[in-house]
Amino acid sequence: MSTQDTTGEDLRTSLQQRFGEAPSIPEGLKGLDVLLGLANHSTHRKYRTEAVPRDLLRLVATVALSAPSKSDLQQADIVEIADADIRRAIADLIPAMPWIALAPAFLVICGNGRRLLEASALHGETFANRHLDHFFNASVDAALVLQNLIVAAEAVGLGTCPISVIRNHAAIVSGILDLPDHVFPVAGLCLGWPEAEGRISPRLPLSQTLHRDRHDDSQLASELMAYDERRGRRDGWDPSDPDFIGWSRAKARMYAEEQRQDFGAFVSDKGFQLI
Amino acid sequence: MSTQDTTGEDLRTSLQQRFGEAPSIPEGLKGLDVLLGLANHSTHRKYRTEAVPRDLLRLVATVALSAPSKSDLQQADIVEIADADIRRAIADLIPAMPWIALAPAFLVICGNGRRLLEASALHGETFANRHLDHFFNASVDAALVLQNLIVAAEAVGLGTCPISVIRNHAAIVSGILDLPDHVFPVAGLCLGWPEAEGRISPRLPLSQTLHRDRHDDSQLASELMAYDERRGRRDGWDPSDPDFIGWSRAKARMYAEEQRQDFGAFVSDKGFQLI
Repeated sequence: MSTQDTTGEDLRTSLQQRFGEAPSIPEGLKGLDVLLGLANHSTHRKYRTEAVPRDLLRLVATVALSAPSKSDLQQADIVEIADADIRRAIADLIPAMPWIALAPAFLVICGNGRRLLEASALHGETFANRHLDHFFNASVDAALVLQNLIVAAEAVGLGTCPISVIRNHAAIVSGILDLPDHVFPVAGLCLGWPEAEGRISPRLPLSQTLHRDRHDDSQLASELMAYDERRGRRDGWDPSDPDFIGWSRAKARMYAEEQRQDFGAFVSDKGFQLI
Repeated sequence: MSTQDTTGEDLRTSLQQRFGEAPSIPEGLKGLDVLLGLANHSTHRKYRTEAVPRDLLRLVATVALSAPSKSDLQQADIVEIADADIRRAIADLIPAMPWIALAPAFLVICGNGRRLLEASALHGETFANRHLDHFFNASVDAALVLQNLIVAAEAVGLGTCPISVIRNHAAIVSGILDLPDHVFPVAGLCLGWPEAEGRISPRLPLSQTLHRDRHDDSQLASELMAYDERRGRRDGWDPSDPDFIGWSRAKARMYAEEQRQDFGAFVSDKGFQLI
């Protein structure tokens, strides 16, 4: 992507691929290159072997920590995994994702509800909010930093792959990283120089995700089927093929299996109250 | 900010203001202008009166919906508030924040755990994951989109102010916006053309938020006090002034008051199980 040459048409093409439609793009818009970078986001699981310099990794992480934070409470932490044994211990938990071991760099993004408690103790105040909100706010703060990390990494040319499945092993990952009470892993993030061009993953139509004034998903079932077909055709399927499995069926099957049944217990063990 | 003229020194200066320190910046780094934009992030609560064109608002929202999503489940929605009565009904809930009524544009970002259930019903699969993870994943997805929205808006020159306090009135906001079961508000977002330059909000030192291999906040109490002083001096205070109230004390006092005690009950009423 060349900064100077970005046009509204490039952005339209990218959004069209993603959403199957594209909003109109005002003339002379500032920041078109940034918008195109965000629109072209793709996940990368294969990387060239070159290292990601530690300075660069810390720079990207620091920039990411500039993200806004609920009530300025700053409830997100990043753990840089430099130690090969620690990386292997995490990667071994998730053998289906070999890129966790192979990525040139790996970070873990955590929610931190602990500093607020420490501040209360330090000043002799009673923390009066031991309920779901305490956990929720830290989760959202961590996700804001995670997204900023992805944007910052892509801006310097890195590819990323978020690893939310570390939550399937939240207690073990927490033990490996010495996470104290009220600190919990939200996602890992693989980083490296992408081996190939990224591919835009199609998204649901805007009718389902961008509402006006009131939420309306009355056409959800038919829109899901249309989306399944659009995705399927993009991937070379004939949607009438009896072997074709669309997005909605694949996701329904994924969630027909029990997953992370112990996540609530883990979060409770970390000291959060969930009601 | 001029794209072409951004230097590593600009970025260093910005991060120095934010963190009280700055990592070294590799020579010839690509994407420096994007990093500087992220580093310079600031919240804006006062806007010029010019409208935000609807096309532009939809473009920024669409770009934001390109954010990654847990297992590609796409559990985030945006509601654009165009109706003046709906805006006023939300703004009236939060009189301490007049910018909710006054901002040229206002969005609400929601987590959506509903599409996944609909996909299961559509394909005759049993949804086997009615527990905390269902709510948590949708919350994180919504936060990823929120952060992408903020980055996209700032890129085109808009200023933003996230309104997490709508969660203090989650059930009422949900009713106003017709949010169905398993859809919940995560934050509002004011948008408009900033009236003045932004100001960088200082952040905790990296020793507390950017860890290596293992989480270590053993120096938290002293680092909190040092941070309080750095922030205080930035704002023109003498930290030895008996009237000075640092960040950690202010936040401890804020959370000594009960807030959002009913948030868990609201989320449960929306159909989520929290354990």
